[in-house]
Amino acid sequence: MAVGTSSGIPSTPLLKDEVDIVIPTIRNLDFLEMWRPFFQPYHLIIVQDGDPRKTITVPDGFDYELYNRNDINRILGPKAACISFNDSTCRCFGFLVSKKKYVFTVDDDCFVAKDPSGKEINASEQHIKNLLSPSTPFFFNTLYDPYREGADFVRGYPFSLREGVPTAVSHGLWLNIPDYDAPTQLVKPHERNARYVDAVITVPKGALFPMCGMNLAFNRELIGPAMYFGLMGDGQPIRRYDDMWAGWCVKVICDHLGLGVKTGLPYIWHSKASNPLVNLKKEYHGIHWQEEVIPFFQAVSIPKKCTTPQECYIELSKQVKEKLGKVDEYFNKLADAMVTWIEAWDELNPSEKLSNISAE
Amino acid sequence: MAVGTSSGIPSTPLLKDEVDIVIPTIRNLDFLEMWRPFFQPYHLIIVQDGDPRKTITVPDGFDYELYNRNDINRILGPKAACISFNDSTCRCFGFLVSKKKYVFTVDDDCFVAKDPSGKEINASEQHIKNLLSPSTPFFFNTLYDPYREGADFVRGYPFSLREGVPTAVSHGLWLNIPDYDAPTQLVKPHERNARYVDAVITVPKGALFPMCGMNLAFNRELIGPAMYFGLMGDGQPIRRYDDMWAGWCVKVICDHLGLGVKTGLPYIWHSKASNPLVNLKKEYHGIHWQEEVIPFFQAVSIPKKCTTPQECYIELSKQVKEKLGKVDEYFNKLADAMVTWIEAWDELNPSEKLSNISAE
Repeated sequence: MAVGTSSGIPSTPLLKDEVDIVIPTIRNLDFLEMWRPFFQPYHLIIVQDGDPRKTITVPDGFDYELYNRNDINRILGPKAACISFNDSTCRCFGFLVSKKKYVFTVDDDCFVAKDPSGKEINASEQHIKNLLSPSTPFFFNTLYDPYREGADFVRGYPFSLREGVPTAVSHGLWLNIPDYDAPTQLVKPHERNARYVDAVITVPKGALFPMCGMNLAFNRELIGPAMYFGLMGDGQPIRRYDDMWAGWCVKVICDHLGLGVKTGLPYIWHSKASNPLVNLKKEYHGIHWQEEVIPFFQAVSIPKKCTTPQECYIELSKQVKEKLGKVDEYFNKLADAMVTWIEAWDELNPSEKLSNISAE
Repeated sequence: MAVGTSSGIPSTPLLKDEVDIVIPTIRNLDFLEMWRPFFQPYHLIIVQDGDPRKTITVPDGFDYELYNRNDINRILGPKAACISFNDSTCRCFGFLVSKKKYVFTVDDDCFVAKDPSGKEINASEQHIKNLLSPSTPFFFNTLYDPYREGADFVRGYPFSLREGVPTAVSHGLWLNIPDYDAPTQLVKPHERNARYVDAVITVPKGALFPMCGMNLAFNRELIGPAMYFGLMGDGQPIRRYDDMWAGWCVKVICDHLGLGVKTGLPYIWHSKASNPLVNLKKEYHGIHWQEEVIPFFQAVSIPKKCTTPQECYIELSKQVKEKLGKVDEYFNKLADAMVTWIEAWDELNPSEKLSNISAE
């Protein structure tokens, strides 16, 4: 574990060579200045959204690679069609080209938050701690994450479940601007999240959750192939559901493979509320469709023979086509893109194709 | 809602005439002095454990009724066999004789805790707030209880589920001495819970949790008949699993009836760790049996025709006999006591027998 200094900045960053930080952006990355003490030790993968002719500047001293639309087309060829633009969806290209075991993805309007004592929160460190400690999806622990210092399993928690399962996802939260949909933004334009909840929770098996891509980390080896953010944005009837779609797929696959999803700490400071009227238009179909999509995911069953995230994801794409294709033609296109995504994943990550979950 | 004063003591206690506070005890109730500002407006039901010849003194000014073993035998006759002694199990007699809609039960070694700002926590008020606001068992909300001030449902939460379901149970937590089992107490004798987590969470549908009876409130009309603490203590092979047993039964019945279970706030200050070596003996069979009992409850299915907690509980007693009777003869006795408990409930609460859940 990293040794912290009095400034809250670790002298030895956790897993320096095993984490990529993926940032989708359309602007100069000045926000990195605030993250410098925490992010500078890590490698950054920047995915440039929008016009590839625009030059994105990155502050000096960061180790990064940057991809724009032209790069993605060149690297993926016809398969580039599965990577959408004009939505934060494009971040998943960064997951595809990463060669690291862990990915932390963060939005460029997210800044370093402070805990109630006023100390700056090292989000990457907390995500890594979440991912390195097990999850407990099979039974709820009332004192939250039993693996945190000062906590444990409470009376009545079965001993056979106390080893937990590997954690695949760490979902962090947001102080200041909460992640509300357009209708809630319209109803509560001034609501800010000021409640710091000092907890990490495993989302129980069988429960879906709304996964936000703003402040998210995962074990790429365990669940990377399922972290596809779908067809959203340019030329698509839906936006702002990229992370939700990924979250629903990821959760049912984690449940099937016996992997854990944690939510809670770390917080980031979300600075900017997007325009609720613009969002309302982007979300319209999503709000409508989610009422059919969520029951689909709640009922989905993946056959036992699927033992890798790739196999699970291909199976899921078939069920999406079969069950959701009736809701709208869009889901047929999405199901095809899910297959293309896995083909792209296997092409760029050939060694993983041969491994399976039991070898992790 | 009650209007708080600067001292944290509400000027108007919530639901003054609709809440009973149930306290199982073997000693003089000096601990009530600390609770006086919060409990004095409410009616107390004190269930005296142990030797009925002993006189329990209650500080002046409290409105209470007190039952000892002789009272219970007189009131229930042969059915008194379902109320165990020498374990906190006997508290459920208080649930039986209450005539109120809500019950808050608290142990006599639990004191008023303080929040991080140093303010005394009004546990009864927080429990009532939890019970009066809906629960969200069908989909996880990452910003915790969406009905609390300053919080809401996040993006991606289905609108069709935002009305929530009625809350049946509010499970509060403990600062200082955590509710650990004997093995954990032995391994970590000095661990104290100092983490104040400012959250209330709905335990998702399908997930079981370890329900502790130390600091617990519930809607008696919705779930009272399932709040049976079993056969424990005197003459039984098992102790310290009374609340766990109730929690497993309650959770599967809440899931079946579409009711919610919340856990988190309020905290109480748990003052006294019980002796881990004594506990180890008491818990031995429970630790052993829970490995079979929990999979039973995870797999249990209650037929649709059961629409009241009574009907669900009787059905559960049949399945306990059928499936757990094989584990140990004890479960046959327990299944019979579950039936006796419902008979006693219906005898003491005749008007409720005719109502059903849809009429609540």
